[in-house]
Amino acid sequence: MPGNKAVAYREPGVVEVVDIDYPTFELRDGPGVNPANVGRKVPHGVILKTVATNICGSDQHMVRGRTTAPPGLILGHEITGEVVEKGSDVEFLSVGDIVSVPFNIACGRCRNCKERRTGICLNVNPDRPGSAYGYVDMGGWVGGQAEYVLVPYADFNALKFPDRDQALEKILDLTMLSDIFPTGFHGCVTAGVGVGSTVYVAGAGPVGLAAAASAHLLGAAVVIVGDLNQERLAQARSFGCETVDVSAGPIGDQIEQILGEPEVDCAVDAVGFEARGHGTDAATEQPAAVLNSLMEVTRAGGSLGIPGLYVTGDPGAATEAAKVGSLSLRLGLGWAKSHAFTTGQCPVMKYHRGLMQAILHDKVHIAKAVNAQAIPLTEAPTGYHAFDEGAAKKFVLNPNEYIPS
Amino acid sequence: MPGNKAVAYREPGVVEVVDIDYPTFELRDGPGVNPANVGRKVPHGVILKTVATNICGSDQHMVRGRTTAPPGLILGHEITGEVVEKGSDVEFLSVGDIVSVPFNIACGRCRNCKERRTGICLNVNPDRPGSAYGYVDMGGWVGGQAEYVLVPYADFNALKFPDRDQALEKILDLTMLSDIFPTGFHGCVTAGVGVGSTVYVAGAGPVGLAAAASAHLLGAAVVIVGDLNQERLAQARSFGCETVDVSAGPIGDQIEQILGEPEVDCAVDAVGFEARGHGTDAATEQPAAVLNSLMEVTRAGGSLGIPGLYVTGDPGAATEAAKVGSLSLRLGLGWAKSHAFTTGQCPVMKYHRGLMQAILHDKVHIAKAVNAQAIPLTEAPTGYHAFDEGAAKKFVLNPNEYIPS
Amino acid sequence: MPGNKAVAYREPGVVEVVDIDYPTFELRDGPGVNPANVGRKVPHGVILKTVATNICGSDQHMVRGRTTAPPGLILGHEITGEVVEKGSDVEFLSVGDIVSVPFNIACGRCRNCKERRTGICLNVNPDRPGSAYGYVDMGGWVGGQAEYVLVPYADFNALKFPDRDQALEKILDLTMLSDIFPTGFHGCVTAGVGVGSTVYVAGAGPVGLAAAASAHLLGAAVVIVGDLNQERLAQARSFGCETVDVSAGPIGDQIEQILGEPEVDCAVDAVGFEARGHGTDAATEQPAAVLNSLMEVTRAGGSLGIPGLYVTGDPGAATEAAKVGSLSLRLGLGWAKSHAFTTGQCPVMKYHRGLMQAILHDKVHIAKAVNAQAIPLTEAPTGYHAFDEGAAKKFVLNPNEYIPS
Amino acid sequence: MPGNKAVAYREPGVVEVVDIDYPTFELRDGPGVNPANVGRKVPHGVILKTVATNICGSDQHMVRGRTTAPPGLILGHEITGEVVEKGSDVEFLSVGDIVSVPFNIACGRCRNCKERRTGICLNVNPDRPGSAYGYVDMGGWVGGQAEYVLVPYADFNALKFPDRDQALEKILDLTMLSDIFPTGFHGCVTAGVGVGSTVYVAGAGPVGLAAAASAHLLGAAVVIVGDLNQERLAQARSFGCETVDVSAGPIGDQIEQILGEPEVDCAVDAVGFEARGHGTDAATEQPAAVLNSLMEVTRAGGSLGIPGLYVTGDPGAATEAAKVGSLSLRLGLGWAKSHAFTTGQCPVMKYHRGLMQAILHDKVHIAKAVNAQAIPLTEAPTGYHAFDEGAAKKFVLNPNEYIPS
Repeated sequence: MPGNKAVAYREPGVVEVVDIDYPTFELRDGPGVNPANVGRKVPHGVILKTVATNICGSDQHMVRGRTTAPPGLILGHEITGEVVEKGSDVEFLSVGDIVSVPFNIACGRCRNCKERRTGICLNVNPDRPGSAYGYVDMGGWVGGQAEYVLVPYADFNALKFPDRDQALEKILDLTMLSDIFPTGFHGCVTAGVGVGSTVYVAGAGPVGLAAAASAHLLGAAVVIVGDLNQERLAQARSFGCETVDVSAGPIGDQIEQILGEPEVDCAVDAVGFEARGHGTDAATEQPAAVLNSLMEVTRAGGSLGIPGLYVTGDPGAATEAAKVGSLSLRLGLGWAKSHAFTTGQCPVMKYHRGLMQAILHDKVHIAKAVNAQAIPLTEAPTGYHAFDEGAAKKFVLNPNEYIPS
Repeated sequence: MPGNKAVAYREPGVVEVVDIDYPTFELRDGPGVNPANVGRKVPHGVILKTVATNICGSDQHMVRGRTTAPPGLILGHEITGEVVEKGSDVEFLSVGDIVSVPFNIACGRCRNCKERRTGICLNVNPDRPGSAYGYVDMGGWVGGQAEYVLVPYADFNALKFPDRDQALEKILDLTMLSDIFPTGFHGCVTAGVGVGSTVYVAGAGPVGLAAAASAHLLGAAVVIVGDLNQERLAQARSFGCETVDVSAGPIGDQIEQILGEPEVDCAVDAVGFEARGHGTDAATEQPAAVLNSLMEVTRAGGSLGIPGLYVTGDPGAATEAAKVGSLSLRLGLGWAKSHAFTTGQCPVMKYHRGLMQAILHDKVHIAKAVNAQAIPLTEAPTGYHAFDEGAAKKFVLNPNEYIPS
Repeated sequence: MPGNKAVAYREPGVVEVVDIDYPTFELRDGPGVNPANVGRKVPHGVILKTVATNICGSDQHMVRGRTTAPPGLILGHEITGEVVEKGSDVEFLSVGDIVSVPFNIACGRCRNCKERRTGICLNVNPDRPGSAYGYVDMGGWVGGQAEYVLVPYADFNALKFPDRDQALEKILDLTMLSDIFPTGFHGCVTAGVGVGSTVYVAGAGPVGLAAAASAHLLGAAVVIVGDLNQERLAQARSFGCETVDVSAGPIGDQIEQILGEPEVDCAVDAVGFEARGHGTDAATEQPAAVLNSLMEVTRAGGSLGIPGLYVTGDPGAATEAAKVGSLSLRLGLGWAKSHAFTTGQCPVMKYHRGLMQAILHDKVHIAKAVNAQAIPLTEAPTGYHAFDEGAAKKFVLNPNEYIPS
Repeated sequence: MPGNKAVAYREPGVVEVVDIDYPTFELRDGPGVNPANVGRKVPHGVILKTVATNICGSDQHMVRGRTTAPPGLILGHEITGEVVEKGSDVEFLSVGDIVSVPFNIACGRCRNCKERRTGICLNVNPDRPGSAYGYVDMGGWVGGQAEYVLVPYADFNALKFPDRDQALEKILDLTMLSDIFPTGFHGCVTAGVGVGSTVYVAGAGPVGLAAAASAHLLGAAVVIVGDLNQERLAQARSFGCETVDVSAGPIGDQIEQILGEPEVDCAVDAVGFEARGHGTDAATEQPAAVLNSLMEVTRAGGSLGIPGLYVTGDPGAATEAAKVGSLSLRLGLGWAKSHAFTTGQCPVMKYHRGLMQAILHDKVHIAKAVNAQAIPLTEAPTGYHAFDEGAAKKFVLNPNEYIPS
């Protein structure tokens, strides 16, 4: 049985590469595993040899110490891998298949899964609807920033790539199917982006850039990305986006310079609860800042897609209200404009097949849009740090050297 | 030319019946008329002799002095009438037709109207998208709590009843088509109510009761209405709703007693910004109380329809935040449950024809559900007062005695 | 191991009750079993003790000898039962649960199932997308008109009733969830039926009556049912439908007498390929008659829901064209009216949960609408015969005496 | 008052340029004008000086003598023009505006227009729902292949371009907004084309090419166009489509060579009733050939968009059935695959604004895709002839020399 190196959270600001057990078809106890899930049999699972596994912005919430994640929790919910073993109930996958794994774990058998709401599966997290690999309070499924990982309900969850060689050739694009590409796309879809739309995306991190690339793919006429980080804004411009520097004055004014009017049709919040203020308030954390500004710059009748994470509790927040996940929202403004708001985890399975097809047929270059860079698993700590510092990059861990350097 | 008695706002807490000019095909200056609308020609309008015109909860916001409505503003946006004159551009209506008028005035020619978003028409209110008769900051179109009223863009706006006698026979039902029946229905539609849904409606005022009746019409399995007002709760039970007394303990617990689980599929906010606290906080105004409780009691994947009015500014609010329309919302909770939220004025035209058919073919008894009571125009002040006191009634003004007593 | 009596097709016009093997968790060879399915392991299945199993109009196609069904094929795809054994992969069902089984067998793991198209599952029928129990060319899954039956992919397929006693009390309603109630409902949904619609349903057999009941549940203003069979038309009138006798003159004229106009908003074809002519042609089989008449009586912009079965081949058809499933359709008429047409098996799982809720909360009385009558399994031959003769009844087989007489 | 040269139908195979009256705000008698429309006042109209007006495949049906179009009928329903006069009811357009005119004339005031079904407006054609400029049996509105043309209900119908200079610069693209671009797009939308779809478009004429360009814009992974005409197939390949020569063997086989499987997700019929046979039958007219082949090559669960024209009567058809618009369709095949079919005129207004934005922001190059070529009005007869001969071109008439040569 091979060894299994993995990335673990140690303490605020620190991740490390550790040795963990090779997976079996059972969820065993460990840091962050929900007691009710300990000992759960997984005959419906496959064991993957990881081909690519990415560092995500939502991992940073844990690493910054903004959550109750315990030391030793194995990180990683963006997983692409090769099937090396399969459980007795797996019927439609074979050893050797290369598959993309949605970050949301779903049983495929509950009411929500049957309704395509795989982000809020009722059967995988004993605490609440919804689950993910390597994430605090999400059931305790072991993270995939590792050499090997167990994927439950594999026939349902995994998306098989049609051709192994083609998959490995486009792996830096295809690895984005596990989370950020569908997540950004979902933000656009729920914001109503279609052919001819004008779109504003708040945030030029990887999810924001993925949303911007998605907006282009959906036929948007103009895609505008806003951020404070100049390097990330330059990245957005590199694939045809307009940009707004939110530290440089009112967003609406900057949009007006681009479009001739201060409002867009559709808006995507790709920032979430760790938002900072705009303009002169840019230094302080203001969790409602993004959503309030989106209501301002979205036209009457427009919609807001909100893939950016908002949490039920945030012990490290700046205010008492924010600590319990309350935001001071100008809902009256949104109401006057008949806005609609869609929140929540992206149900990856709704989108990943179509987006895979778009990648395989060269309709989108998502790796380039998010500036993907592969690094060895052992350099994960460096990647986490650089990403936290605002590098305009999406780090892809390469634990088994499937990705040529 | 006949005289024209109408209901005017005088000062906080006071409305009065006054004599105003008989309408012409031009919008003339007067209390609350937007300067940019003064002198506007209305060859596309009809003059209606009012058959029925209802007092609405949103009128109360003005009458309570919670807005900047000027003295003398003529109230009334729920209008059913008989065509007595038509402008030169009116092609498809005839004198003698009895029509229902959507409270939202719409041009039928702008982008939003073409997209069925008649609640945010771009051409009728110089200040912002969206307009209504007899309402502050809505363009200044004269209200319809009067003997005669001008309806612009009449070919587009008016819904003609197929048979005059049938219409007058069912007038207490049909008069609800101008606002509260579509508004309640829109709340349900945007909350995702369908066959077999469980639904919670916050508020047992007329819009809440209309939402509850709509939920039944849409095939809901269980409809639960919550309020503090016992008489209104009894009214809800009179047509097959379950009820929750929000002053009597956690809503989720009461829902669990009804359904066997503490959550519903769909929730409708029929209260809006003048919400009061729940349980022991029931005496104080807490504008976010309803929405926060709805996030608690709505299942993961559910939606919230928000027809209850939230305002951009509320000078008389209890807190500085509320004065600018900000609410302290537990958005993190909604996000964790992948909730969607739809706000804004109901686009009445999307629904009124189908609801008319349902009324005419006896599929719904909306007048009975909301406890409609016709009163003379001269008794409008009494009606406003009784409604403000919480009467479980919907008052229908009867200015021209079309409605037999 | 108990015995297992079941209903088998013997020859055109003849069914008989036979003894077959008690099911195991493997699909064994037998009449009509697809060779590629022989020996298929079913650890994901449950064995049900049948509570109710209905005779369906589509069974009649086989029994009349209009298909290539082999002698000995065990019939029955409308199944409700109690779980008596479960396979090793079944996680969320327990022995003793009473469940409704969609007639379409679905794996829950293929692209189509994930997209809620369970009527065209890719993994259960080796010949083509889509499968069913006890049906020719549908994979060979053994029919459920038997004392015991195997249900594959049970966690995915079965709908568990929340309460055993309540389920048995309403069993004549709940048994319709396996096929005809969702099928009629799907016809209405795809025909665009909503609140206030006028609807024409062609055919007053059980599916037509279920469609009519569904239209009421969806809030239709007027539901009109057409047929040649007076007893079935009387049955339709018994629950508030209007009726058209298609042998008594043009359908449009009769609709005009009811509605005041000769067209409806929505139309449902609940007849299918064994349609007979209308008016003076009523004696002969005219497979295109229903669809052509529906295009005539549906308004411009309306939609046609087509749950009635049309087949790819019909060896016993009256014409060469019909033998290969070709119909002479007036598509030009439909095109001029911008009609949309939706065909195919109903994906039962999309609807059965909501319809169950509507039954359990007394929002619909489907057993009464279709005139359900329970008979012993041994009387199946009599039931098939009476149904074929046009009895206005839905026969429910009662193999294990769960249903009190 | 200026003169007004226009293109008239004279006899089968012959069009000619004639002098007609300059328009007034009234529909006067003339060839093809519906008697009930004679004398109709049009205060809601504008008179356009034509900027561009295209020859359409559906014009050819009349010119080939396949309809009852009378001699002298003025042709042309694809109109872009400059407002030179406006009626008294026109409020939101100004002299000097350059506008695109949907080919379907719509009142903006009837039930269908309010429901965005502008292709079947109830108030403009006395004979049936739906109307168009310059077309037999469509109400008699004078065609726009002329120097000047009257556009009724102009505030509703016309799409104003935001900038005159920009509009003239992109006029060869923008002129496609009046019909073929939205029509092709509608075919794709109703066929379910989305990000990642595989699409087969039957027909490489201008509508087929526009559908193919639309499919790309909607994010399709692979777009395959089929035709008999080699020049048109080459045109399709020029902007990234794959092609199928329908005379060269089964379509499914050719699709399999491209995709690795013989079926696509979505299919568009851009041919209509003048379809020819495939393979060895390619010489004869077989009106059902396209639709039957599309059912073959579309996967189970797929949809067929049918913008290609099918007529209610076709006096010159090859068979008695075709003369009354009947087609021998293999509906049984479609039913087995759960296909959905959407027919009818494209409601242009639903799409033209978004497509305009896509053109103005360089997201699509529709003129290049359809190989647009401007010719003088006087060369219309040559253009009609060349187009009928199968030229892989879209001819744009340039009556007032707005388009530089």
